[in-house]
Amino acid sequence: MKAIKPVLALTATLVLAACGTSMTASSESGGPLLIQQQGSFAAGGTTNTAPGTFDPRKPLEPAGQTYHGDHAYTFYQIPVNARKLPILMWHGAGQFSKTWETTADGREGFQNIFLRRRFGVYLIDQPRRGDAGRSMVEATLKPTPDEQLWFNQFRVGLWPNYFNGVQFDRSPETLNQFYRAMTPNTGPFDLNVVSDGVSALFSKVGPGILFTHSQGGGPGWLTAIKNSNVKAIVSFEPGSSFIFPEGELPPPIPSAFDTVRGEATPLPQFLQLTKIPILIIYGDNIPGQSIDLPAQDSWRARLQMSRLWRDAVNRHGGDVKVVHLPEIGIKGNTHFPMSDLNNVQIADLVSKFLAEKGLD
Amino acid sequence: MKAIKPVLALTATLVLAACGTSMTASSESGGPLLIQQQGSFAAGGTTNTAPGTFDPRKPLEPAGQTYHGDHAYTFYQIPVNARKLPILMWHGAGQFSKTWETTADGREGFQNIFLRRRFGVYLIDQPRRGDAGRSMVEATLKPTPDEQLWFNQFRVGLWPNYFNGVQFDRSPETLNQFYRAMTPNTGPFDLNVVSDGVSALFSKVGPGILFTHSQGGGPGWLTAIKNSNVKAIVSFEPGSSFIFPEGELPPPIPSAFDTVRGEATPLPQFLQLTKIPILIIYGDNIPGQSIDLPAQDSWRARLQMSRLWRDAVNRHGGDVKVVHLPEIGIKGNTHFPMSDLNNVQIADLVSKFLAEKGLD
Repeated sequence: MKAIKPVLALTATLVLAACGTSMTASSESGGPLLIQQQGSFAAGGTTNTAPGTFDPRKPLEPAGQTYHGDHAYTFYQIPVNARKLPILMWHGAGQFSKTWETTADGREGFQNIFLRRRFGVYLIDQPRRGDAGRSMVEATLKPTPDEQLWFNQFRVGLWPNYFNGVQFDRSPETLNQFYRAMTPNTGPFDLNVVSDGVSALFSKVGPGILFTHSQGGGPGWLTAIKNSNVKAIVSFEPGSSFIFPEGELPPPIPSAFDTVRGEATPLPQFLQLTKIPILIIYGDNIPGQSIDLPAQDSWRARLQMSRLWRDAVNRHGGDVKVVHLPEIGIKGNTHFPMSDLNNVQIADLVSKFLAEKGLD
Repeated sequence: MKAIKPVLALTATLVLAACGTSMTASSESGGPLLIQQQGSFAAGGTTNTAPGTFDPRKPLEPAGQTYHGDHAYTFYQIPVNARKLPILMWHGAGQFSKTWETTADGREGFQNIFLRRRFGVYLIDQPRRGDAGRSMVEATLKPTPDEQLWFNQFRVGLWPNYFNGVQFDRSPETLNQFYRAMTPNTGPFDLNVVSDGVSALFSKVGPGILFTHSQGGGPGWLTAIKNSNVKAIVSFEPGSSFIFPEGELPPPIPSAFDTVRGEATPLPQFLQLTKIPILIIYGDNIPGQSIDLPAQDSWRARLQMSRLWRDAVNRHGGDVKVVHLPEIGIKGNTHFPMSDLNNVQIADLVSKFLAEKGLD
C-alpha cells in the first residue's frame, strides 16, 4: 500500500484543483468526514454452559443453555486514505466510549479530531461496561448519589465552585451531559478480564496505538504486556495499577483519598513495556504538596507514582515521557484533557508525539 | 493486484465528493460514507439528590450529592446532502444500538445502509440499557445461561438446528457475535421511562422517522403518542404493549409461551397513532396455528395481535400496514430482518414505504 500513496495524493490534488474545493483541508477544519469503512464487533470474552439438556418447551430453565460474556465491544471508523496505524481509545472508571465522542459542551472529541487527522479510530467499551455489559459475574447496581465526588475527583473544581481558568464550560447543560456520560460496571472491575478483552481486540485489529484514560491506564500497561500489536500508548491521567519489576517496587504513596501502590510483575513481562514509546499526560490543579482534599491529593500521589514508573521503565531501556501540562504552559485542564475546552491543543501535543515516534 | 482496486474506488469518490454532485451512487454501492456531522449526547432522564450537605473530605458519603440517570443515549451521523427527516433506530429486549450496526456475520447493517440512502441515522440505547446504563432504580444482574432460549425466540431455528433456508449465516463466529450483541437491563424495564427518554430525544432532534425492533415496538407507540415529532414508524416484529382505545380491547391471545394482551389508553391519546403512517414487518417461520413450541408460538400470537391492532387504528382513520414477509414471497427471515442475509431487500421494502408516504 505504501507505493500507491503518492498516486492517491496526486490524484486527489488534481481532482480538487479541477473542482475548486479542497476535501482534505475541509475535512481537517470541520467539513465532512470521509469514512472508508465503519462498523462494530465484539472481541474476546468467555462462555459458560449450564449442566443438563436444553428443553425448548422450558426455555426459562438454564439447563443445557450457554452464556457468552466478558467480551470487549468496539465501534470503529476508518477514514479514506487512512494512516497505517489506527488508534484504539479506552475509557476510564465509570465511563464508556463517550469519553472520546462529542464533548459535554457539544464540540468534537478525539474520535472526530483523529479521524480528521486520518487515523482509524476504534472506540472501546471494556468488558462489563456500557454496550459490553454481559458479565460472567453477578453484580448489584445501586443508584447511589456520587456526582459531587466526581466533580472534584475529575478536577472540574471544588464543588460547587469551578477552578479559576478551568478548561470546562460552565453552562448547566454541559454539567448535565458530563454526568450522563457515566455508566456503571455490570460486573466487578477485573484488571485481567478487561485487559484480556482489549488484547483480543488488538489481535483482531492488528498493530495499533492505544489511548487510555484514568482507570484504563493500568490495564493498558497489562494489554501491552499481553499483546505486541500495541505499538505505543498515550495515557491520559493513569489512575492505578503501575506495574514494576519484582524487587523494584517503590514505597506506597499515601494520599488524603487512598494509598497508591505499584504492582509487581516478573522482569521479562515488565520489559515488554520498554519496547514501545509511551506518553503520559496530566492536567492542572494537581497540588505539589500533600493537602487534605482527597480528590486533588489523590492525583498528587498518582502523578508522583507515574514519575517513579517512568524512571523504572526508562532505567530498563524504555521510552516513557510524563507531561504535566502546567509545566509546559498549558493551564486549566481537568482529568479529561481529551474533551477539555483546549482539546485541539492537546490533540496537537499527541500528534507531535506520534510524528516524533514515526507512528503516523 | 488487489491494491489497484481501492485506488480506482478512492479516485472516483474523491471526484464525486469534491465536485459535490453524484456522490450518492458511489456511496450507495459501498464506497466511502460522506458524513457531514456525527456525535453523541444524552437526552431526557431524571435527577436525584441525597439529603444533607456534601463534605469534600468524605466523598464516599452520598450526603448532598446528586445522581443523574434514566436518560437515553444516542450516537448519530448526518450524511452529506441529507434528506429532510432522520431515522431514529431503537433496539429490542436485551439488545442495544448494535442491532442496526454491522451484522453478526460482518455485513453492513441498517445504520450504514440508510446513511448511504442519505438519511441521518440516530442509534438509540434506551434508558437502563448499554451506554445509557445509569438507572434510577437498583437492579441485580445475574449471568443466567439463556442463549438457546434466544436462538429459538429469535427464530434462527429450533436449537441446535437452523431453520431450512433461514436468512442467517451458519458459521460459529456469526453465532458468537450474535450472542455477544446482547447486553442486560441495568434497571427494571419500564415502558414509561424508556418512552420518556426517546421522546426527549425526539424533542432535541426534531421531526424524524422511528424504527423500532421487538420490545421497542410498544414504547414506540407510546413515544408517538407523547411526541408529535414522530412522523412515521417502521416496527420490526413488535413484541408487546399494543395500545387500544378504552373499551376496544380485544380478547387476550394465549400462546405456548405467554398470553399477549392489549393495553387500554384513552381515545384522544390513541388517536395520535392514527396521524402517522406505520409499517409493521414480521419474518418467517411463524406458525399459522397454535403449536406447543413456546418460541414460535409466541410470535403467532404477536402477529395475530398486530393485525387486530392494525384494524383498530385503521378503523379510527389510521394508516397501519402489516407485512408478513413470507406472504409477499420473502422467505427465511428471523426476528431480525434488519440484519438478516437479505437485509438490503428488507431495506428496499422500507425505502419503498418511505417514498410512498413522502417521507424521503
